[in-house]
Amino acid sequence: MDIEAKKKALRKIVHGVYVIGVQREGSVNAFTATWVTQVSFSPPLVVVGVRNDGLSHSMIEASKVFVINFLGTGQKPLAQHFLKPAHLGGEKLAGVRYRLGRLGAPILEEAIAYVECEVRQIHPGGDHSIVVGEVVEAGLHQDADPLTLKETGWQYGG
Amino acid sequence: MDIEAKKKALRKIVHGVYVIGVQREGSVNAFTATWVTQVSFSPPLVVVGVRNDGLSHSMIEASKVFVINFLGTGQKPLAQHFLKPAHLGGEKLAGVRYRLGRLGAPILEEAIAYVECEVRQIHPGGDHSIVVGEVVEAGLHQDADPLTLKETGWQYGG
Repeated sequence: MDIEAKKKALRKIVHGVYVIGVQREGSVNAFTATWVTQVSFSPPLVVVGVRNDGLSHSMIEASKVFVINFLGTGQKPLAQHFLKPAHLGGEKLAGVRYRLGRLGAPILEEAIAYVECEVRQIHPGGDHSIVVGEVVEAGLHQDADPLTLKETGWQYGG
Repeated sequence: MDIEAKKKALRKIVHGVYVIGVQREGSVNAFTATWVTQVSFSPPLVVVGVRNDGLSHSMIEASKVFVINFLGTGQKPLAQHFLKPAHLGGEKLAGVRYRLGRLGAPILEEAIAYVECEVRQIHPGGDHSIVVGEVVEAGLHQDADPLTLKETGWQYGG
């Protein structure tokens, strides 16, 4: 396989930028993700690719819930904030306005929309797990255009 | 759950538009898809949401291979073409220039890039299956911007 072609081709997959909120026994965390897609209308299912080696992965495994916070165009700084390494106890969320959703995971007040998900399946893949969530709650804060990976100028893929 | 908020929120997921090429015992087909994401760097894995009730689903189940054809900006007509209902025998591909890749599935000459995938997992989800493929071959025809779902003006999500 032509590794350079593989990298360039995979970067043609169109991705957005999201902040995934997670919790475990009262602790909260959030991380920036781009590998997200819907995979069913009925029931409403989404897939999120979650790094195996992160704190959030273990929190999702334990609590079986997560929130997708949708960022709007112009909100790259918010995405940037959640790229920081995680520290258990909610430090990443310290300076950010949020509330806990029905499932106990953080919903960012600045996000344009959110969906709360119960985990239905976690499949080992490669360096990320394939986390399948069913949307059980949702809200729209503002009907703005979502932040795309292209807008950020970042690459995550290939 | 607020069903309208759920629909609007899920439509904030950023998606592209792709033509998935499939084969089974010498027959070929292709269909337009939007629910695609990468889910691992190593090995390089992708997830495609594939409708359970389509011909292509059964072809993927049988042959365990598919190709993601990446469309470029301006190629909505090509995506439109592959929205047509499928007929076994390659009729949808009749007026389209393509070649068969290493895995026997069709690679569109007009696509800007492609990845050939071997199916590693097929997970039942809801109305679509969660098809996990490992990229084993790739090519870049032209380094153009990909076609986004937004550009087409279509909705597929919610």
